[in-house]
Amino acid sequence: MFSVYLPTRIIFGVGSLEKLPELVSNLGKKAMIVTGRKSTKQTGLLDRVISLLKKAEIEAVVYDKIQPNPISDHVDEAAKIARSENVDFVIGLGGGSPIDSAKAIAITAAMGGKFWDYVPVGGGKKPDKALPVVAIPTTHGTGTEADPFAVITNPETNEKVGIGYDVIFPKISIVDPEVMVTLPSDQTAYTSMDAFYHSLEAFLNIDANPYSDLLAVDSMRRIVTYLPVAYKDGKNLEARTNLAWASTEAGITETLTGVIANHAIEHGLSGFHPELAHGLGLCITGPYLLEYMFEETCERLAYLAKAVFNVDVVDTKKAAKTFIEKLYMFQDMFNLNPKLSTLGFKEEELPQIAKTSYRTMKGVVVKSPKRLSEEDLLEIIKRAF
Amino acid sequence: MFSVYLPTRIIFGVGSLEKLPELVSNLGKKAMIVTGRKSTKQTGLLDRVISLLKKAEIEAVVYDKIQPNPISDHVDEAAKIARSENVDFVIGLGGGSPIDSAKAIAITAAMGGKFWDYVPVGGGKKPDKALPVVAIPTTHGTGTEADPFAVITNPETNEKVGIGYDVIFPKISIVDPEVMVTLPSDQTAYTSMDAFYHSLEAFLNIDANPYSDLLAVDSMRRIVTYLPVAYKDGKNLEARTNLAWASTEAGITETLTGVIANHAIEHGLSGFHPELAHGLGLCITGPYLLEYMFEETCERLAYLAKAVFNVDVVDTKKAAKTFIEKLYMFQDMFNLNPKLSTLGFKEEELPQIAKTSYRTMKGVVVKSPKRLSEEDLLEIIKRAF
Ligand SMILES: [Fe+2]
Ligand SMILES: [Fe+2]
Repeated sequence: MFSVYLPTRIIFGVGSLEKLPELVSNLGKKAMIVTGRKSTKQTGLLDRVISLLKKAEIEAVVYDKIQPNPISDHVDEAAKIARSENVDFVIGLGGGSPIDSAKAIAITAAMGGKFWDYVPVGGGKKPDKALPVVAIPTTHGTGTEADPFAVITNPETNEKVGIGYDVIFPKISIVDPEVMVTLPSDQTAYTSMDAFYHSLEAFLNIDANPYSDLLAVDSMRRIVTYLPVAYKDGKNLEARTNLAWASTEAGITETLTGVIANHAIEHGLSGFHPELAHGLGLCITGPYLLEYMFEETCERLAYLAKAVFNVDVVDTKKAAKTFIEKLYMFQDMFNLNPKLSTLGFKEEELPQIAKTSYRTMKGVVVKSPKRLSEEDLLEIIKRAF
Repeated sequence: MFSVYLPTRIIFGVGSLEKLPELVSNLGKKAMIVTGRKSTKQTGLLDRVISLLKKAEIEAVVYDKIQPNPISDHVDEAAKIARSENVDFVIGLGGGSPIDSAKAIAITAAMGGKFWDYVPVGGGKKPDKALPVVAIPTTHGTGTEADPFAVITNPETNEKVGIGYDVIFPKISIVDPEVMVTLPSDQTAYTSMDAFYHSLEAFLNIDANPYSDLLAVDSMRRIVTYLPVAYKDGKNLEARTNLAWASTEAGITETLTGVIANHAIEHGLSGFHPELAHGLGLCITGPYLLEYMFEETCERLAYLAKAVFNVDVVDTKKAAKTFIEKLYMFQDMFNLNPKLSTLGFKEEELPQIAKTSYRTMKGVVVKSPKRLSEEDLLEIIKRAF
């Protein structure tokens, strides 16, 4: 038995951003645009969005302090402004960080209090409303345009926590591959692999179902075909379009099924080292996790060897092994296989990282096809060290 | 550019009907159950639903006059009762007819007036609200559980018209293959082929997009694999589950992309001969339509020869021809290739049928990959005569 629910209106395709005025015209007269410090200004995208809003006679309040691995302090500050400015809806413009922040701000502004009140490991209150959220992703990875999740870090505790509430499904998501062409090569790889792991983890999730399987496989195939193209030539719109759609598909799998232990571990890693890109972190431990769960996953991985990498191997275990090897080699094309020890991680931090991963993300760890304890996570992290 | 929007919460799988009480508990205290005259009583399903509602302390008002090819008179009668009884939501229980009727009743009860006021070729008013609709399909074909459409016939004019409004997306759809096992063989074939043509027509639609393509192909594959199984052994739950999911997938393609001329023609046929099963009507003209649009569709049909029927033919035109042949042969397994002349159709009716098809369903005719006029539709109908 499984359940399908995705109330977001997604407008997908080259040029879709131009539809912004008509899409949001009934959401109110004042919007808060939540974005990062630099890139949407440098590319002119922020100005373009402001002037598109003006076309619908919507006033924009810009909050532009969001950093990678966004923090709850900024959410609280922006929510306070949203309340005092009486904004009607919140636009997340940029990568996953501004969009997730927009979702968190939408809850905090509508409910009052602090954002951490609405985090299960924090205050634990369940929000029953939020301001409408509009997502305009400029990267193709997080899937946040098609899910009810937001990942925010509490800088006091290093807890990087994912929340999920129906009220923060974006009301509207505009996925325009054209606004993604300026994404640098490294970010192109990181965000694409984030999407890849959403799909792969959903496919291995104990709750996997025919709907998310279909989207997961299609999304992984697209990434394997088009990431090498976009990595070399960021302006290739066909490649960007395929990667953008792969990301949205992967986002839908997250909503239908969800991620497993690899995302839990990554939240631990980048919770302690916020400079680690999320997609890179996933690649570092991903193959080790697959090996660690080999017995439990080998039939599904064997299927993926053919479906994703087009390799025909009859023997199940051999095929599964081939998938892991192919994945590792694919990641290598984009330098995504560094050891943690080369990235500033210290061996003595690892137990604390495993502990935090397990505690804050136990809900997804238990969806893994093998029963994994905190010690298991530590062992996987050690192998990737 | 395409748009994705399906706000329905779909609960899919064997046993899902048991979730009814918790799913609808917040929709109100009084429900109208819209169903047909016989089958849900004979199978005990109606009683089961009434007692499941009782568990959530919901009172049920039963409207059980819905016939195949449901008519607007019944919609108006039921809406009047719904208003006078103050029901909070409407449950469509049965095949496409009761569920589509439930949607039409939900509009009419909430808006007032007559249903035909809200039909484009009728009063042309746009409804901005409807009572919440819960869909519980007992057949695997219409896809109405995953779309905003309802098809209702006006008995005065023989117009069989599809309406589509966001307000009648079901709030909740419970798709439980277990309640479908009693579906007789002929209905099993008719409804499965209805789903097949939703997918095939969406795949050929000029608005086809990667999302609906993916679902369409997967759904056609499932039907080709599992219809022969369920046709022989209606109690086979694996087959029913696959056909039920294929139907829901096809319903999603209808929402994402939509049908083309074959559905327009069928509405003409069964508008004049309401005893014609919808799925049978689609099969009768389907292959002729494909031949008629051969030049425009042959690349896509060639793809389907491999993707749906697993036939490897290198030459595009040959492969496309093979697809049409395979489809015809597949339909033959279930006696779905009768000529219209053997079913009580008269040659002199055909021009009127073509005219009505074109007039009432022009919106989908124009989505066909070949530009088709009323005369073209007549020519296709004649070939199937
Ligand atoms: Fe992720
Ligand atoms: Fe149909």
